Amino acid sequence: MERIPHADRFAELIGAANVMTTPENQVPYLKEWRDLYQGVTPMVLRPGNVEEVSSVMRYAYEHDIKIVPQGGNTGLVGGQIPQETGDEIVLSLSRLNKIRSVDSAGFTITVEAGVVLETLHDEAEKAGRLFPLSLGSQGSCQIGGNISTNAGGTAVLAYGNTRDLVLGLEVVLPTGEIWDGLRTLRKDNTGYDLKQLFIGAEGTLGIITAASLKLFPKPRKLEAAFVGLPDPQAALKLFTMAKAQAGPVLTGFEIMPRVGLEFCLNHLEGARDPLNGTHAWYILLELSSGSDAFPIRDLMESILGEAFEEGLVEDAAFAQNLSQVQDFWHIRHGMSEVQKPEGGSIKHDVSVPVACIPDFLDKAIAAVKAFVPGCRPVPFGHIGDGNIHFNVSQPIDADKDAYLAKWDEMNAIVHGIVHEFGGSISAEHGIGRLKRTLLKDVKSNVELDLMRRIKKDLDPKNLLNPGRII
Amino acid sequence: MERIPHADRFAELIGAANVMTTPENQVPYLKEWRDLYQGVTPMVLRPGNVEEVSSVMRYAYEHDIKIVPQGGNTGLVGGQIPQETGDEIVLSLSRLNKIRSVDSAGFTITVEAGVVLETLHDEAEKAGRLFPLSLGSQGSCQIGGNISTNAGGTAVLAYGNTRDLVLGLEVVLPTGEIWDGLRTLRKDNTGYDLKQLFIGAEGTLGIITAASLKLFPKPRKLEAAFVGLPDPQAALKLFTMAKAQAGPVLTGFEIMPRVGLEFCLNHLEGARDPLNGTHAWYILLELSSGSDAFPIRDLMESILGEAFEEGLVEDAAFAQNLSQVQDFWHIRHGMSEVQKPEGGSIKHDVSVPVACIPDFLDKAIAAVKAFVPGCRPVPFGHIGDGNIHFNVSQPIDADKDAYLAKWDEMNAIVHGIVHEFGGSISAEHGIGRLKRTLLKDVKSNVELDLMRRIKKDLDPKNLLNPGRII
Repeated sequence: MERIPHADRFAELIGAANVMTTPENQVPYLKEWRDLYQGVTPMVLRPGNVEEVSSVMRYAYEHDIKIVPQGGNTGLVGGQIPQETGDEIVLSLSRLNKIRSVDSAGFTITVEAGVVLETLHDEAEKAGRLFPLSLGSQGSCQIGGNISTNAGGTAVLAYGNTRDLVLGLEVVLPTGEIWDGLRTLRKDNTGYDLKQLFIGAEGTLGIITAASLKLFPKPRKLEAAFVGLPDPQAALKLFTMAKAQAGPVLTGFEIMPRVGLEFCLNHLEGARDPLNGTHAWYILLELSSGSDAFPIRDLMESILGEAFEEGLVEDAAFAQNLSQVQDFWHIRHGMSEVQKPEGGSIKHDVSVPVACIPDFLDKAIAAVKAFVPGCRPVPFGHIGDGNIHFNVSQPIDADKDAYLAKWDEMNAIVHGIVHEFGGSISAEHGIGRLKRTLLKDVKSNVELDLMRRIKKDLDPKNLLNPGRII
Repeated sequence: MERIPHADRFAELIGAANVMTTPENQVPYLKEWRDLYQGVTPMVLRPGNVEEVSSVMRYAYEHDIKIVPQGGNTGLVGGQIPQETGDEIVLSLSRLNKIRSVDSAGFTITVEAGVVLETLHDEAEKAGRLFPLSLGSQGSCQIGGNISTNAGGTAVLAYGNTRDLVLGLEVVLPTGEIWDGLRTLRKDNTGYDLKQLFIGAEGTLGIITAASLKLFPKPRKLEAAFVGLPDPQAALKLFTMAKAQAGPVLTGFEIMPRVGLEFCLNHLEGARDPLNGTHAWYILLELSSGSDAFPIRDLMESILGEAFEEGLVEDAAFAQNLSQVQDFWHIRHGMSEVQKPEGGSIKHDVSVPVACIPDFLDKAIAAVKAFVPGCRPVPFGHIGDGNIHFNVSQPIDADKDAYLAKWDEMNAIVHGIVHEFGGSISAEHGIGRLKRTLLKDVKSNVELDLMRRIKKDLDPKNLLNPGRII
């Protein structure tokens, strides 16, 4: 049997059982969950602690071996899947899954990169605290991957992106050196804030092996309303009003179009329309508070009352209990999957300044309808963060493949409009392999050059997640 | 008359009136306000816009001229003052003082670097919003300097450090290139987050010329209490309790020792003891909310009621009106200046994990008392951020100069204890020139090396604020 180069040496470093060279063992690491990428690799390495990650990287650096770090393999832009060339080795962080410490009084937790997000939620809960990052994939994504991609999700409005939740990092550099930047300090102005380099760098500058994170008080009260409105302009005004009155208590503000709700009513189990009439647009508005003393139901009524008077809101349903809150979120969370039975869907994950949302939607909806007459735009998402999942379903009865063949052209149209508004072509999913070629269209040469210099400085041999981002 | 090299050329670039070569004109740019540094420079340049900053930097880069960027000249670690060698030219950002745009609906503002912090407060106020960064020097410090030093202040607990308030930057690089990273997006995952490099870099990597910043709802209700407690352990428990119940509504949590209050009663105009008895420690607790609907007075009473029952709190005074709130803060803000009439004071700006505050204080107070018997520690500040201004007044009737001669030794003792707790020797003031030699004692070689590589990569000729930080 032909020996796989370096496999024996890696087995010495991390144990033979953690060097996976057979196709059967490798399957879960090579398949991207939306079937956009199928990777090829000589082996998957599963080191068990930071020293083993370091020794693997040191060896790889000495022998010019390309390494692809991987967390829960839930990324949406192909960054975590080895290239089809077969010369990239996958380094899985899954075995680094220890909770290193929890500080309830200081509202911090320190965990290893491979801890699954849901486990982190549970650990925070046990300590009487909240770790707010909340994603569809939280049952399998890992915190190291969340940090490496600066994950967003539905709690950004009140708690920020993942970057805002990180206090310190432990990172193995491309050379194998370990940078111990694990700190739980709220304030530290001693030189360059190096952790920022690695957050959102999609594993191209170093491998995050552990992190110290912020915890928050657990919400004790929760209110939600499902609101019907005439247009995104009304939604923006409602947002500004709600934010001004509720401030950090405003924990959810999500937009959905009528067609999206209809898709849910047709295809999503348990979904029912919370309102009686039909409305062009809907907002899911959530308030929550760590204080029992806060009458957030009164606040909700005051905000929506004012909005009614100003003619912004056509109708609203208040959740009467936690189960109804969940029903509202069930519709919002179902918005993605219900597009599948409606045929092909061309997707965009974009953001614009919050106040530009109505103009952006007007312009982008008109542009894609002109490009593909009969197409059905389903723009939904985190309007409070300026982040819209601008997905466009095919015309009814159109040919799916012919429609999807227009993916790049439609992307170009929508991204062009995003760019006019000073927006982002990847609000929360990152660049990875999928959007790498688009960067040159939206970034200045100065910016691209700075990125290249940083990459070259930290990874001079271009061995760590090469061909991602830059 | 001898001609000053390059002055004519700079005059062509930015106008002769903005090239200041006479000692009288230069005075305000060369004197550090605590008299720790007196700079020497051939000239002070005052460009009027980003293009002029760019042309100055391009010329400086071509001719190997060292440049020291300066904002409001309120820094505490000497970073903004040119070296005594006289070969560094000061570049003042004061004339870049435009408000570029305000977006009330989207809660953002875009301003130039030379805008004074208080002006920024006023502009936000006019738009019905809050810009929360709050510092003693806000009447003269400039936002570019605040960002370059990642300034802290009294609003960090609820709103974060300056870093957390920045959405986008415009930066002139050491080569003179302009990086336009001005964006008002809440979410943007398109490659490395370059703005993070320049925030807190103290002007060593680029010159910040403009920034897009977050705005917040204006607080409509405010409550404060002045609380007497037996020890820092009780203060920590009160903090944890208050934070868990109030979450983001907890906007102030400051600690002061009895001796500090006594200094205020003796030396601070208008100061009176809010409580009748004497207590070893005091907490200023503030709650504020953007919502009229929030009964924060009830919440304050509930938190302190629970704390009384648990024996954490000995006495508390509630502010009955805004004027009393200001009285409480008057004591807290006076804490620094009242140390002056008590003789020499050796200062530290340190942080530790919040939960370590009591142990840190016990250990550090015992250590400095053993080092200088009779010395009077006055540790005060942002306990909710883990940030203590650990200042130590001389023994009564001791010789001031002899006491101050022990500065470095006492620093070493206190910083050693800070380091044991994984703390920071500069929580909010930065490194500059003052603490540069201390960095090697508290940072690993890996970290120092990473900083050096980044500096070298962005500023290969070491011309921009050389000799600061690294």
